[in-house]
Amino acid sequence: MRIVIVLYPRMTALDAVGPYEVLSRLPGADLVLAGHDRGPVGTDTGMLTLHADEQLANIDTADIVVVPGGPDITDQQNDRRLHEWLRAVDPTTTWTASVCTGSLILGAAGLLQGRDATSHWLTLDELTKHGAVPKRDRVVRDGKYATAAGVSAGIDLGLTLAAEIAGPQVAMGIQLAIEYDPEPPFDAGSPGKAPQAVTAFLKANEQLVLRR
Amino acid sequence: MRIVIVLYPRMTALDAVGPYEVLSRLPGADLVLAGHDRGPVGTDTGMLTLHADEQLANIDTADIVVVPGGPDITDQQNDRRLHEWLRAVDPTTTWTASVCTGSLILGAAGLLQGRDATSHWLTLDELTKHGAVPKRDRVVRDGKYATAAGVSAGIDLGLTLAAEIAGPQVAMGIQLAIEYDPEPPFDAGSPGKAPQAVTAFLKANEQLVLRR
Repeated sequence: MRIVIVLYPRMTALDAVGPYEVLSRLPGADLVLAGHDRGPVGTDTGMLTLHADEQLANIDTADIVVVPGGPDITDQQNDRRLHEWLRAVDPTTTWTASVCTGSLILGAAGLLQGRDATSHWLTLDELTKHGAVPKRDRVVRDGKYATAAGVSAGIDLGLTLAAEIAGPQVAMGIQLAIEYDPEPPFDAGSPGKAPQAVTAFLKANEQLVLRR
Repeated sequence: MRIVIVLYPRMTALDAVGPYEVLSRLPGADLVLAGHDRGPVGTDTGMLTLHADEQLANIDTADIVVVPGGPDITDQQNDRRLHEWLRAVDPTTTWTASVCTGSLILGAAGLLQGRDATSHWLTLDELTKHGAVPKRDRVVRDGKYATAAGVSAGIDLGLTLAAEIAGPQVAMGIQLAIEYDPEPPFDAGSPGKAPQAVTAFLKANEQLVLRR
């Protein structure tokens, strides 16, 4: 089972590493991190570097494609080469997926037209630009298109796909292996739950979160 | 604020990337991934490569040190150079922390003697080898030593430290920024919650999880 996670400069590391940590543990998983070029890929904070082990141009089929997001994906929303690759490989996939603002890249490639999708809460409405129907859920599925909310939601996406692909026993086994029994010290992970002052701060300083 | 995340071959990527994604967003964070050598560091699955941007030998102080775990840390439990580095930098830290089996590395370095600590549920009892007192909690703090349970618990560790360092408003802001509002499709993330068959399978096939 060929799983491709797309890397690009200034992406958010956890967007890729969350789904990776789950999907790489599927029986028969052949997972690769791939970008336009092989080699180091700097992420959004400038403090962590991932590594593309394959060139997208060398990949023409995939069972699963995952497109992570990032705080500034202007380049990826205008990257025709990336969009062409996504459109070319999409007909071969069982699942085409995204995390966070990665859905805006799928959208820019024309793959979410008329489909339900989600994104980081701060960018959810931007999905309409690409003809998608924004849904404020953790993981949104529309046919074989599965989009996850912001950053950490990629772990939930991974488990959702794992269950579809290999059944609930395997998915639960992976969840237990990575001890995913979340206990955040606060219940502030969505705009409806965080104190209004915190949500307002992030909205007013969107560039801190999304335009570092 | 200098934050050092220790990298080593065959570690688990999410153990490092979870805390990184939280702590790198602290105001004034100067976070570095560091290993014995600079350069690419292959992780446990063989499918993802991180990058050490600094040599541990060049770092003699840190406000926070985080030691991730991995499925086979035999080498790191016997790595005297690593232990000496940990012992040398520890007196300079505000927090010395670990994720998953990283606590066994802190333990091997002699830093958890007589202290409460946690680890991946499959290795919790091994903490006694190093004189630590195993506690089955998501994040265990004993003075400035903070240890987290398996793999994904590093996100909760990061938020716990973020709140201590910068206050709850900032920690909640980071939680909201990474939209950490977990909704796993199953409630199987700890041995007490997973179906017995799943837990038994992982126990019987521990090498799948811990000795790939």
